[in-house]
Amino acid sequence: MTSDQVPGGPFDDPDYRAGVVELLALLSYGELSAVEQLNQDSQDAPDLRTKVAIQTMAASEWSHFVQLRDRLVELGEDPYAAMESFRTTFARFHGKTEPSDWLEGLLKAFVGDGLAADFYREIAAFLDADTRQLVLETMSQTGNSEFVVDQVREAIAADPRVAGRLALWGRRLMGEALSQAQMVVAERDVLTAVVVGAADRPGGFDLASIGRMFTRITEAHAQRMARLGLDA
Amino acid sequence: MTSDQVPGGPFDDPDYRAGVVELLALLSYGELSAVEQLNQDSQDAPDLRTKVAIQTMAASEWSHFVQLRDRLVELGEDPYAAMESFRTTFARFHGKTEPSDWLEGLLKAFVGDGLAADFYREIAAFLDADTRQLVLETMSQTGNSEFVVDQVREAIAADPRVAGRLALWGRRLMGEALSQAQMVVAERDVLTAVVVGAADRPGGFDLASIGRMFTRITEAHAQRMARLGLDA
Repeated sequence: MTSDQVPGGPFDDPDYRAGVVELLALLSYGELSAVEQLNQDSQDAPDLRTKVAIQTMAASEWSHFVQLRDRLVELGEDPYAAMESFRTTFARFHGKTEPSDWLEGLLKAFVGDGLAADFYREIAAFLDADTRQLVLETMSQTGNSEFVVDQVREAIAADPRVAGRLALWGRRLMGEALSQAQMVVAERDVLTAVVVGAADRPGGFDLASIGRMFTRITEAHAQRMARLGLDA
Repeated sequence: MTSDQVPGGPFDDPDYRAGVVELLALLSYGELSAVEQLNQDSQDAPDLRTKVAIQTMAASEWSHFVQLRDRLVELGEDPYAAMESFRTTFARFHGKTEPSDWLEGLLKAFVGDGLAADFYREIAAFLDADTRQLVLETMSQTGNSEFVVDQVREAIAADPRVAGRLALWGRRLMGEALSQAQMVVAERDVLTAVVVGAADRPGGFDLASIGRMFTRITEAHAQRMARLGLDA
Protein backbone atom coordinates (compact mmCIF):
# COMPACT_ATOMS: atom_id res chain seq x y z
CA MET A 1 0.00 0.00 0.00
CA THR A 2 1.51 3.35 -1.03
CA SER A 3 1.08 6.60 0.94
CA ASP A 4 -1.80 7.73 -1.26
CA GLN A 5 -3.76 4.56 -0.50
CA VAL A 6 -3.49 4.73 3.32
CA PRO A 7 -6.82 5.72 4.88
CA GLY A 8 -6.25 8.79 7.05
CA GLY A 9 -2.84 9.24 5.39
CA PRO A 10 -1.40 12.51 4.06
CA PHE A 11 -3.15 12.12 0.69
CA ASP A 12 -6.55 12.45 2.42
CA ASP A 13 -5.75 16.16 2.57
CA PRO A 14 -6.75 17.41 -0.90
CA ASP A 15 -4.29 20.31 -0.66
CA TYR A 16 -1.39 17.98 0.10
CA ARG A 17 -2.37 15.69 -2.73
CA ALA A 18 -2.70 18.59 -5.18
CA GLY A 19 0.64 19.97 -3.99
CA VAL A 20 2.44 16.65 -4.49
CA VAL A 21 0.96 16.27 -7.97
CA GLU A 22 2.19 19.78 -8.85
CA LEU A 23 5.60 18.98 -7.38
CA LEU A 24 5.93 15.74 -9.37
CA ALA A 25 4.83 17.56 -12.51
CA LEU A 26 7.38 20.32 -11.89
CA LEU A 27 10.19 17.82 -11.31
CA SER A 28 9.14 15.72 -14.33
CA TYR A 29 9.11 18.70 -16.62
CA GLY A 30 12.44 19.83 -15.19
CA GLU A 31 14.04 16.45 -15.90
CA LEU A 32 12.58 16.24 -19.41
CA SER A 33 13.72 19.75 -20.16
CA ALA A 34 17.22 18.89 -18.84
CA VAL A 35 17.27 15.90 -21.22
CA GLU A 36 16.41 18.17 -24.13
CA GLN A 37 19.04 20.73 -23.19
CA LEU A 38 21.71 18.02 -22.88
CA ASN A 39 20.66 16.54 -26.22
CA GLN A 40 21.26 19.92 -27.80
CA ASP A 41 24.59 20.36 -26.00
CA SER A 42 25.82 16.99 -27.17
CA GLN A 43 25.52 18.11 -30.80
CA ASP A 44 28.39 20.52 -30.18
CA ALA A 45 30.64 18.05 -28.35
CA PRO A 46 34.23 18.24 -29.62
CA ASP A 47 34.62 14.44 -29.84
CA LEU A 48 32.73 11.15 -29.49
CA ARG A 49 33.89 10.50 -25.92
CA THR A 50 32.55 13.85 -24.71
CA LYS A 51 29.35 13.44 -26.71
CA VAL A 52 28.80 10.13 -24.95
CA ALA A 53 29.54 11.68 -21.54
CA ILE A 54 26.81 14.28 -22.19
CA GLN A 55 24.38 11.64 -23.40
CA THR A 56 25.16 9.60 -20.27
CA MET A 57 23.99 12.58 -18.19
CA ALA A 58 20.90 12.82 -20.39
CA ALA A 59 20.18 9.10 -19.87
CA SER A 60 20.38 9.58 -16.11
CA GLU A 61 17.96 12.54 -16.18
CA TRP A 62 15.70 10.51 -18.45
CA SER A 63 15.49 7.69 -15.90
CA HIS A 64 14.53 10.28 -13.25
CA PHE A 65 11.85 11.55 -15.59
CA VAL A 66 10.43 8.07 -16.14
CA GLN A 67 10.21 7.38 -12.38
CA LEU A 68 8.50 10.71 -11.67
CA ARG A 69 6.10 10.36 -14.59
CA ASP A 70 5.20 6.80 -13.56
CA ARG A 71 4.39 8.00 -10.03
CA LEU A 72 1.98 10.57 -11.49
CA VAL A 73 0.31 7.72 -13.41
CA GLU A 74 0.12 5.64 -10.18
CA LEU A 75 -1.64 8.59 -8.55
CA GLY A 76 -4.25 8.43 -11.31
CA GLU A 77 -3.10 11.64 -13.00
CA ASP A 78 -2.48 12.34 -16.68
CA PRO A 79 1.23 13.15 -16.38
CA TYR A 80 1.36 15.15 -19.60
CA ALA A 81 -1.56 17.38 -18.67
CA ALA A 82 0.02 17.97 -15.23
CA MET A 83 3.41 18.76 -16.77
CA GLU A 84 1.91 21.04 -19.42
CA SER A 85 1.17 23.71 -16.80
CA PHE A 86 4.92 24.15 -16.17
CA ARG A 87 5.84 24.58 -19.82
CA THR A 88 6.03 28.39 -19.51
CA THR A 89 8.27 28.26 -16.43
CA PHE A 90 10.93 26.19 -18.19
CA ALA A 91 10.53 27.93 -21.54
CA ARG A 92 11.19 31.26 -19.77
CA PHE A 93 14.25 29.88 -17.99
CA HIS A 94 15.78 28.24 -21.06
CA GLY A 95 14.87 31.18 -23.28
CA LYS A 96 16.84 33.50 -20.99
CA THR A 97 19.78 31.14 -20.54
CA GLU A 98 20.57 29.93 -24.05
CA PRO A 99 24.26 28.88 -23.94
CA SER A 100 26.32 30.76 -26.52
CA ASP A 101 28.97 28.06 -26.76
CA TRP A 102 30.01 24.59 -25.66
CA LEU A 103 31.51 25.66 -22.30
CA GLU A 104 28.42 27.68 -21.35
CA GLY A 105 26.31 24.63 -22.17
CA LEU A 106 28.52 22.42 -19.98
CA LEU A 107 28.36 24.86 -17.09
CA LYS A 108 24.59 25.14 -17.40
CA ALA A 109 24.27 21.34 -17.28
CA PHE A 110 26.51 21.16 -14.22
CA VAL A 111 24.79 24.01 -12.37
CA GLY A 112 21.34 22.67 -13.22
CA ASP A 113 22.21 19.16 -12.07
CA GLY A 114 23.54 20.54 -8.78
CA LEU A 115 20.57 22.85 -8.15
CA ALA A 116 18.17 20.00 -8.79
CA ALA A 117 19.99 17.77 -6.29
CA ASP A 118 20.01 20.56 -3.67
CA PHE A 119 16.33 21.22 -4.19
CA TYR A 120 15.46 17.51 -3.95
CA ARG A 121 17.44 17.29 -0.71
CA GLU A 122 15.70 20.37 0.75
CA ILE A 123 12.20 19.12 0.15
CA ALA A 124 12.65 15.41 0.88
CA ALA A 125 12.11 15.78 4.64
CA PHE A 126 8.63 17.23 4.21
CA LEU A 127 7.19 14.56 1.97
CA ASP A 128 5.21 11.39 2.67
CA ALA A 129 7.25 8.19 2.72
CA ASP A 130 6.67 7.13 -0.89
CA THR A 131 7.19 10.52 -2.46
CA ARG A 132 10.30 11.01 -0.31
CA GLN A 133 11.74 7.66 -1.36
CA LEU A 134 11.12 8.50 -5.02
CA VAL A 135 12.77 11.91 -4.66
CA LEU A 136 15.79 10.48 -2.85
CA GLU A 137 16.20 7.65 -5.36
CA THR A 138 16.18 9.95 -8.34
CA MET A 139 18.60 12.32 -6.60
CA SER A 140 21.04 9.56 -5.70
CA GLN A 141 21.76 8.88 -9.37
CA THR A 142 23.51 12.18 -10.01
CA GLY A 143 27.28 12.43 -10.32
CA ASN A 144 27.51 12.04 -14.08
CA SER A 145 28.26 15.73 -14.37
CA GLU A 146 31.64 15.35 -12.66
CA PHE A 147 33.48 15.30 -15.99
CA VAL A 148 32.42 18.93 -16.40
CA VAL A 149 34.78 19.90 -13.57
CA ASP A 150 37.82 18.69 -15.54
CA GLN A 151 36.67 20.23 -18.79
CA VAL A 152 36.06 23.66 -17.26
CA ARG A 153 39.31 23.67 -15.29
CA GLU A 154 41.23 22.68 -18.44
CA ALA A 155 39.59 25.46 -20.43
CA ILE A 156 40.54 28.00 -17.74
CA ALA A 157 44.11 26.69 -17.63
CA ALA A 158 44.34 27.11 -21.40
CA ASP A 159 42.87 30.65 -21.30
CA PRO A 160 42.44 32.32 -17.90
CA ARG A 161 40.01 34.91 -19.33
CA VAL A 162 37.47 32.09 -19.62
CA ALA A 163 37.07 32.17 -15.80
CA GLY A 164 35.62 35.68 -15.78
CA ARG A 165 33.16 35.00 -18.55
CA LEU A 166 31.99 31.71 -17.01
CA ALA A 167 31.68 33.24 -13.52
CA LEU A 168 29.36 35.85 -15.01
CA TRP A 169 27.41 33.12 -16.81
CA GLY A 170 27.08 31.15 -13.57
CA ARG A 171 25.62 34.19 -11.80
CA ARG A 172 23.16 34.71 -14.63
CA LEU A 173 22.05 31.05 -14.47
CA MET A 174 21.52 31.25 -10.72
CA GLY A 175 19.73 34.57 -10.98
CA GLU A 176 17.32 33.27 -13.62
CA ALA A 177 16.72 30.05 -11.68
CA LEU A 178 15.83 31.99 -8.53
CA SER A 179 13.65 34.37 -10.48
CA GLN A 180 11.64 31.51 -12.00
CA ALA A 181 11.46 29.77 -8.62
CA GLN A 182 10.06 32.93 -7.06
CA MET A 183 7.41 33.13 -9.75
CA VAL A 184 6.41 29.52 -9.03
CA VAL A 185 6.17 30.36 -5.30
CA ALA A 186 4.00 33.38 -6.08
CA GLU A 187 1.66 31.44 -8.37
CA ARG A 188 1.39 28.05 -6.65
CA ASP A 189 0.25 27.99 -3.03
CA VAL A 190 -0.37 24.24 -2.61
CA LEU A 191 2.92 23.35 -4.24
CA THR A 192 4.84 25.85 -2.13
CA ALA A 193 3.19 24.62 1.06
CA VAL A 194 4.36 21.05 0.33
CA VAL A 195 7.87 22.16 -0.59
CA VAL A 196 8.50 24.11 2.63
CA GLY A 197 6.80 21.53 4.84
CA ALA A 198 3.86 23.78 5.74
CA ALA A 199 1.18 21.48 4.33
CA ASP A 200 0.37 20.13 7.79
CA ARG A 201 0.94 23.34 9.76
CA PRO A 202 -1.92 25.71 10.52
CA GLY A 203 -1.34 29.11 8.95
CA GLY A 204 0.52 27.71 5.95
CA PHE A 205 4.01 28.73 4.94
CA ASP A 206 5.88 31.92 5.68
CA LEU A 207 7.98 33.67 3.08
CA ALA A 208 10.97 33.70 5.45
CA SER A 209 11.30 29.91 5.33
CA ILE A 210 11.33 30.06 1.53
CA GLY A 211 13.96 32.78 1.67
CA ARG A 212 16.12 30.59 3.92
CA MET A 213 15.79 27.66 1.52
CA PHE A 214 16.86 29.84 -1.42
CA THR A 215 19.82 31.11 0.62
CA ARG A 216 21.00 27.58 1.41
CA ILE A 217 20.71 26.59 -2.26
CA THR A 218 22.62 29.70 -3.31
CA GLU A 219 25.41 28.86 -0.86
CA ALA A 220 25.68 25.32 -2.20
CA HIS A 221 25.84 26.77 -5.72
CA ALA A 222 28.74 29.04 -4.67
CA GLN A 223 30.64 26.01 -3.38
CA ARG A 224 30.09 24.16 -6.63
CA MET A 225 31.32 27.15 -8.64
CA ALA A 226 34.42 27.27 -6.44
CA ARG A 227 35.20 23.63 -7.31
CA LEU A 228 35.30 24.72 -10.95
CA GLY A 229 37.66 27.57 -10.04
CA LEU A 230 34.92 30.17 -10.55
CA ASP A 231 33.68 33.03 -8.33
CA ALA A 232 29.97 32.86 -7.59
CA MET B 1 35.08 -16.89 -19.26
CA THR B 2 33.83 -15.05 -22.34
CA SER B 3 34.37 -16.21 -25.95
CA ASP B 4 37.39 -13.98 -26.41
CA GLN B 5 39.14 -15.59 -23.41
CA VAL B 6 38.69 -19.23 -24.49
CA PRO B 7 42.02 -20.70 -25.65
CA GLY B 8 41.57 -22.06 -29.15
CA GLY B 9 38.23 -20.17 -29.39
CA PRO B 10 37.09 -18.05 -32.33
CA PHE B 11 38.96 -14.98 -31.04
CA ASP B 12 42.27 -16.76 -31.60
CA ASP B 13 41.71 -16.01 -35.28
CA PRO B 14 42.93 -12.40 -35.64
CA ASP B 15 40.64 -11.81 -38.63
CA TYR B 16 37.58 -12.95 -36.68
CA ARG B 17 38.55 -10.76 -33.74
CA ALA B 18 39.15 -7.74 -35.99
CA GLY B 19 35.84 -8.37 -37.76
CA VAL B 20 33.88 -8.55 -34.50
CA VAL B 21 35.49 -5.35 -33.26
CA GLU B 22 34.51 -3.62 -36.51
CA LEU B 23 31.00 -5.05 -36.25
CA LEU B 24 30.55 -3.85 -32.65
CA ALA B 25 31.91 -0.43 -33.64
CA LEU B 26 29.51 -0.25 -36.60
CA LEU B 27 26.53 -1.23 -34.43
CA SER B 28 27.58 1.17 -31.62
CA TYR B 29 27.90 4.08 -34.00
CA GLY B 30 24.58 3.13 -35.58
CA GLU B 31 22.82 3.14 -32.21
CA LEU B 32 24.42 6.42 -31.13
CA SER B 33 23.52 8.02 -34.40
CA ALA B 34 19.93 6.76 -34.04
CA VAL B 35 19.81 8.38 -30.59
CA GLU B 36 20.93 11.68 -32.08
CA GLN B 37 18.41 11.50 -34.92
CA LEU B 38 15.58 10.73 -32.47
CA ASN B 39 16.68 13.58 -30.21
CA GLN B 40 16.38 15.93 -33.16
CA ASP B 41 13.01 14.48 -34.16
CA SER B 42 11.62 14.90 -30.67
CA GLN B 43 12.15 18.66 -30.90
CA ASP B 44 9.40 18.79 -33.52
CA ALA B 45 6.94 16.57 -31.65
CA PRO B 46 3.43 18.05 -31.70
CA ASP B 47 2.82 17.42 -27.98
CA LEU B 48 4.49 16.21 -24.78
CA ARG B 49 3.14 12.68 -25.01
CA THR B 50 4.61 12.18 -28.50
CA LYS B 51 7.87 13.86 -27.49
CA VAL B 52 8.15 11.36 -24.65
CA ALA B 53 7.33 8.44 -26.98
CA ILE B 54 10.23 9.50 -29.25
CA GLN B 55 12.56 9.93 -26.28
CA THR B 56 11.52 6.47 -25.06
CA MET B 57 12.75 5.06 -28.38
CA ALA B 58 15.96 7.07 -27.97
CA ALA B 59 16.45 5.67 -24.44
CA SER B 60 16.09 2.14 -25.78
CA GLU B 61 18.68 2.75 -28.55
CA TRP B 62 20.91 4.36 -25.92
CA SER B 63 20.84 1.23 -23.77
CA HIS B 64 21.84 -0.81 -26.86
CA PHE B 65 24.69 1.61 -27.44
CA VAL B 66 25.93 1.23 -23.85
CA GLN B 67 25.93 -2.58 -24.04
CA LEU B 68 27.81 -2.62 -27.37
CA ARG B 69 30.31 0.01 -26.21
CA ASP B 70 30.95 -1.86 -22.97
CA ARG B 71 31.67 -5.05 -24.91
CA LEU B 72 34.29 -3.18 -26.95
CA VAL B 73 35.87 -2.08 -23.66
CA GLU B 74 35.80 -5.69 -22.38
CA LEU B 75 37.65 -6.71 -25.54
CA GLY B 76 40.37 -4.21 -24.61
CA GLU B 77 39.48 -1.77 -27.39
CA ASP B 78 39.10 2.01 -27.25
CA PRO B 79 35.43 2.11 -28.30
CA TYR B 80 35.58 5.72 -29.49
CA ALA B 81 38.56 5.13 -31.75
CA ALA B 82 36.87 2.03 -33.16
CA MET B 83 33.60 3.91 -33.75
CA GLU B 84 35.36 6.90 -35.29
CA SER B 85 36.13 4.91 -38.44
CA PHE B 86 32.39 4.63 -39.18
CA ARG B 87 31.66 8.34 -38.82
CA THR B 88 31.70 8.92 -42.60
CA THR B 89 29.31 6.03 -43.29
CA PHE B 90 26.63 7.42 -41.00
CA ALA B 91 27.28 11.05 -41.91
CA ARG B 92 26.72 10.14 -45.59
CA PHE B 93 23.51 8.26 -44.79
CA HIS B 94 22.03 10.96 -42.55
CA GLY B 95 23.22 13.74 -44.87
CA LYS B 96 21.28 12.16 -47.75
CA THR B 97 18.17 11.34 -45.69
CA GLU B 98 17.48 14.54 -43.73
CA PRO B 99 13.73 14.41 -42.94
CA SER B 100 11.92 17.46 -44.23
CA ASP B 101 9.11 17.23 -41.67
CA TRP B 102 7.83 15.41 -38.62
CA LEU B 103 6.24 12.50 -40.50
CA GLU B 104 9.38 11.85 -42.55
CA GLY B 105 11.36 11.83 -39.29
CA LEU B 106 8.93 9.32 -37.75
CA LEU B 107 9.09 7.06 -40.79
CA LYS B 108 12.87 7.20 -40.82
CA ALA B 109 12.99 6.20 -37.13
CA PHE B 110 10.58 3.32 -37.77
CA VAL B 111 12.38 2.08 -40.89
CA GLY B 112 15.79 2.40 -39.24
CA ASP B 113 14.66 0.52 -36.13
CA GLY B 114 13.26 -2.28 -38.30
CA LEU B 115 16.33 -2.53 -40.55
CA ALA B 116 18.59 -2.70 -37.51
CA ALA B 117 16.54 -5.54 -36.02
CA ASP B 118 16.56 -7.44 -39.35
CA PHE B 119 20.30 -7.00 -39.69
CA TYR B 120 20.92 -8.16 -36.11
CA ARG B 121 18.79 -11.24 -36.75
CA GLU B 122 20.64 -12.03 -40.00
CA ILE B 123 24.09 -11.95 -38.46
CA ALA B 124 23.38 -13.49 -35.04
CA ALA B 125 23.77 -17.08 -36.24
CA PHE B 126 27.35 -16.54 -37.41
CA LEU B 127 28.72 -15.03 -34.20
CA ASP B 128 30.49 -16.57 -31.21
CA ALA B 129 28.24 -17.24 -28.21
CA ASP B 130 28.91 -13.99 -26.31
CA THR B 131 28.67 -11.67 -29.27
CA ARG B 132 25.50 -13.47 -30.38
CA GLN B 133 23.93 -13.13 -26.95
CA LEU B 134 24.75 -9.41 -26.90
CA VAL B 135 23.29 -8.88 -30.36
CA LEU B 136 20.11 -10.80 -29.54
CA GLU B 137 19.67 -8.99 -26.22
CA THR B 138 19.95 -5.55 -27.77
CA MET B 139 17.61 -6.58 -30.59
CA SER B 140 14.97 -7.94 -28.21
CA GLN B 141 14.39 -4.51 -26.76
CA THR B 142 12.86 -3.00 -29.89
CA GLY B 143 9.14 -2.43 -30.26
CA ASN B 144 9.05 1.15 -28.99
CA SER B 145 8.54 2.34 -32.54
CA GLU B 146 5.07 0.76 -32.74
CA PHE B 147 3.37 4.09 -31.99
CA VAL B 148 4.66 5.26 -35.38
CA VAL B 149 2.24 2.86 -37.10
CA ASP B 150 -0.76 4.68 -35.60
CA GLN B 151 0.62 8.13 -36.29
CA VAL B 152 1.36 7.40 -39.95
CA ARG B 153 -1.97 5.66 -40.55
CA GLU B 154 -3.81 8.60 -38.97
CA ALA B 155 -1.91 11.09 -41.13
CA ILE B 156 -2.83 9.10 -44.26
CA ALA B 157 -6.47 8.90 -43.19
CA ALA B 158 -6.52 12.69 -42.75
CA ASP B 159 -4.85 13.31 -46.11
CA PRO B 160 -4.46 10.36 -48.52
CA ARG B 161 -1.83 12.21 -50.59
CA VAL B 162 0.56 11.70 -47.67
CA ALA B 163 0.79 8.00 -48.59
CA GLY B 164 2.44 8.68 -51.95
CA ARG B 165 4.97 11.08 -50.52
CA LEU B 166 5.89 8.75 -47.62
CA ALA B 167 6.13 5.70 -49.91
CA LEU B 168 8.67 7.61 -52.00
CA TRP B 169 10.52 8.62 -48.84
CA GLY B 170 10.59 5.00 -47.64
CA ARG B 171 12.14 3.90 -50.96
CA ARG B 172 14.75 6.61 -50.70
CA LEU B 173 15.64 5.57 -47.12
CA MET B 174 16.01 1.93 -48.14
CA GLY B 175 18.01 2.84 -51.23
CA GLU B 176 20.46 4.96 -49.26
CA ALA B 177 20.79 2.32 -46.53
CA LEU B 178 21.63 -0.36 -49.11
CA SER B 179 24.03 1.96 -50.88
CA GLN B 180 25.93 2.67 -47.64
CA ALA B 181 25.86 -1.03 -46.72
CA GLN B 182 27.38 -1.91 -50.12
CA MET B 183 30.16 0.60 -49.54
CA VAL B 184 30.90 -0.98 -46.15
CA VAL B 185 31.02 -4.42 -47.82
CA ALA B 186 33.41 -3.10 -50.46
CA GLU B 187 35.70 -1.44 -47.93
CA ARG B 188 35.71 -3.93 -45.05
CA ASP B 189 36.67 -7.52 -45.76
CA VAL B 190 37.06 -8.81 -42.19
CA LEU B 191 33.77 -7.23 -41.10
CA THR B 192 31.92 -8.61 -44.12
CA ALA B 193 33.36 -12.09 -43.58
CA VAL B 194 32.00 -12.13 -40.00
CA VAL B 195 28.61 -10.78 -41.03
CA VAL B 196 27.96 -13.42 -43.71
CA GLY B 197 29.39 -16.27 -41.65
CA ALA B 198 32.43 -16.80 -43.88
CA ALA B 199 35.03 -16.10 -41.20
CA ASP B 200 35.61 -19.82 -40.65
CA ARG B 201 35.14 -20.98 -44.25
CA PRO B 202 38.10 -21.36 -46.60
CA GLY B 203 37.83 -19.00 -49.57
CA GLY B 204 36.00 -16.31 -47.58
CA PHE B 205 32.61 -14.87 -48.53
CA ASP B 206 30.92 -14.75 -51.88
CA LEU B 207 29.03 -11.72 -53.08
CA ALA B 208 25.95 -13.83 -53.80
CA SER B 209 25.41 -14.57 -50.10
CA ILE B 210 25.55 -10.84 -49.37
CA GLY B 211 23.09 -10.21 -52.16
CA ARG B 212 20.70 -12.75 -50.67
CA MET B 213 20.95 -11.11 -47.25
CA PHE B 214 20.15 -7.69 -48.73
CA THR B 215 17.19 -9.22 -50.58
CA ARG B 216 15.76 -10.73 -47.38
CA ILE B 217 16.16 -7.41 -45.55
CA THR B 218 14.48 -5.56 -48.43
CA GLU B 219 11.53 -7.98 -48.32
CA ALA B 220 11.12 -7.46 -44.56
CA HIS B 221 11.21 -3.69 -45.18
CA ALA B 222 8.41 -4.02 -47.75
CA GLN B 223 6.26 -5.89 -45.21
CA ARG B 224 6.84 -3.15 -42.61
CA MET B 225 5.89 -0.46 -45.10
CA ALA B 226 2.71 -2.39 -45.89
CA ARG B 227 1.75 -2.33 -42.18
CA LEU B 228 1.88 1.47 -42.41
CA GLY B 229 -0.33 1.38 -45.50
CA LEU B 230 2.57 2.31 -47.78
CA ASP B 231 3.89 0.75 -51.00
CA ALA B 232 7.56 -0.25 -50.84
